[in-house]
Amino acid sequence: GSKALREKLAARHGVKPEETFVALGSSEIIDLAARALLRPGLEGITSEKSYAPYSLAIRAAGAELVLAPMRGYTYDLTAIARRMTPRTRLVYLANPNNPTGTAFGHDELDQFLGEALPHILVVLDEAYLHYADRKDMPRAEELHRKHGNLLIVRTFSKVYGLAGLRIGYGIGAPEVLSVFRQLKTPFNTSVVAQVAAIAALDDTEHVRRSVETNRVERRRLIAGLERIGLQAVPSETNFVFVEMGPEAPRVCEELLRRGVIVRPLGWMGLPGAARISVGRPEENDRFLAAMGEIWPAHAAKRELAER
Amino acid sequence: GSKALREKLAARHGVKPEETFVALGSSEIIDLAARALLRPGLEGITSEKSYAPYSLAIRAAGAELVLAPMRGYTYDLTAIARRMTPRTRLVYLANPNNPTGTAFGHDELDQFLGEALPHILVVLDEAYLHYADRKDMPRAEELHRKHGNLLIVRTFSKVYGLAGLRIGYGIGAPEVLSVFRQLKTPFNTSVVAQVAAIAALDDTEHVRRSVETNRVERRRLIAGLERIGLQAVPSETNFVFVEMGPEAPRVCEELLRRGVIVRPLGWMGLPGAARISVGRPEENDRFLAAMGEIWPAHAAKRELAER
Repeated sequence: GSKALREKLAARHGVKPEETFVALGSSEIIDLAARALLRPGLEGITSEKSYAPYSLAIRAAGAELVLAPMRGYTYDLTAIARRMTPRTRLVYLANPNNPTGTAFGHDELDQFLGEALPHILVVLDEAYLHYADRKDMPRAEELHRKHGNLLIVRTFSKVYGLAGLRIGYGIGAPEVLSVFRQLKTPFNTSVVAQVAAIAALDDTEHVRRSVETNRVERRRLIAGLERIGLQAVPSETNFVFVEMGPEAPRVCEELLRRGVIVRPLGWMGLPGAARISVGRPEENDRFLAAMGEIWPAHAAKRELAER
Repeated sequence: GSKALREKLAARHGVKPEETFVALGSSEIIDLAARALLRPGLEGITSEKSYAPYSLAIRAAGAELVLAPMRGYTYDLTAIARRMTPRTRLVYLANPNNPTGTAFGHDELDQFLGEALPHILVVLDEAYLHYADRKDMPRAEELHRKHGNLLIVRTFSKVYGLAGLRIGYGIGAPEVLSVFRQLKTPFNTSVVAQVAAIAALDDTEHVRRSVETNRVERRRLIAGLERIGLQAVPSETNFVFVEMGPEAPRVCEELLRRGVIVRPLGWMGLPGAARISVGRPEENDRFLAAMGEIWPAHAAKRELAER
């Protein structure tokens, strides 16, 4: 039941304990939302270039997957709203988005939630919220109070660093969460994870330091890429998204051979792109040094080929 | 993926890693078996007076629950076999059984598995196996190699003492377990639980001591109950099952008022019975002292009423 953690989360977010749900990281909530709301004949919507488990969960429930296009590298809520039909039951939004690193703002989401029919659940996955710099990020608790159809998803796997413990949570309508409680595996999170999560919520100094380190290093990473001619998408997360063109898979492979792991994104339909995690200063130095050696040769080859 | 733990379990049980499945305690496997195999129109069988989650999982999958009677307080595999129909897909067996504490033997299970149609999965929940004293307990790994339709379920929540970490495992056919892997919540057990489980498997001294303490104390508990006129069912587990008659709920309540918690079983259709956990010596002393004060008065009243 995660009683102590749910009470702490309720106090923190200004909601009732029955409006909270503790889960095995955000992934269990993503999964439960599809299982609770979708079935063959119904539809779930998410955006292209977003977190793959949304699409997988919609398909696993036997429902039709509807993918909306982005505006540039950002969720286009208008395009999603236009795709809602009487068969739509679920919408997944990542904000900030993984893997493009962008975010939409409060007013845009407010309007979207007002337009969504009340039988549509909007899952707002805020895994990377702590890292966002833009001033008008959605005030999700306020929107939860205003609209009945929002489910906020948070995780302890990112800024709190507890991925290996499997713990995250949702905030939403008690009626939706009580269905989740019936569907979830009988005992989900461990007591160790619950206790660690309670302690993590109080460790504001760790959060502040992590966010600040990330901000400084993210800026440095983007500037370093710019110096060698690569334009990263402005990021609100702890990673940066870069388009490299057709050389991307080979660049990622050469990085790997030098012991630097970045995420090529061909498997999700973005063969020219990669996601690069913001690491510690020395890790970022190592990545930038390796890229400084690898990229100019590829860029030169490409220029030659294009002539 | 729990790679290291699965490799260790495979070596321990003489099976391949793909024949193992690591889960959030045995409860996740019980749940997944019903979700994988049952749907409306199909049937799942278990025994009366057994572990309630089996019945709940069968019903939650929308299937028909078929309850076989016991022989005394023991699973009657013949009665279960007689209830199999072309619509049966799943059978849950607890051995030793919770809450009656009894067990069936190797030959009986061998014969039962031979009779069960190959499309029926037999889930053998051995949560309490370590505590069993009878010599002919099923050699489950041998039966797994012989019959394709067995799924052995074990947990780290009992003799290993890791209930709060949520970890258990299954051993069965790779084809069945690969369906479980598709259905399970994407990330289930924590790395902390996996590491603890690996360490627990090597801590044979803890297991030996726990089993021995339980054996001595279980005997003392049963003898103590006998001295005040209560006949416990012979137990192969770390609890004893006692029929007290109509006074049972009141006796449990009086125990609770003295700070001793036992499990009344009225909620599972056994209003006259209770399950008493074998505790540490001082806990069992306290229980026996309390029962020594409570029970004779109730027994005397009952005798009077019966005259």
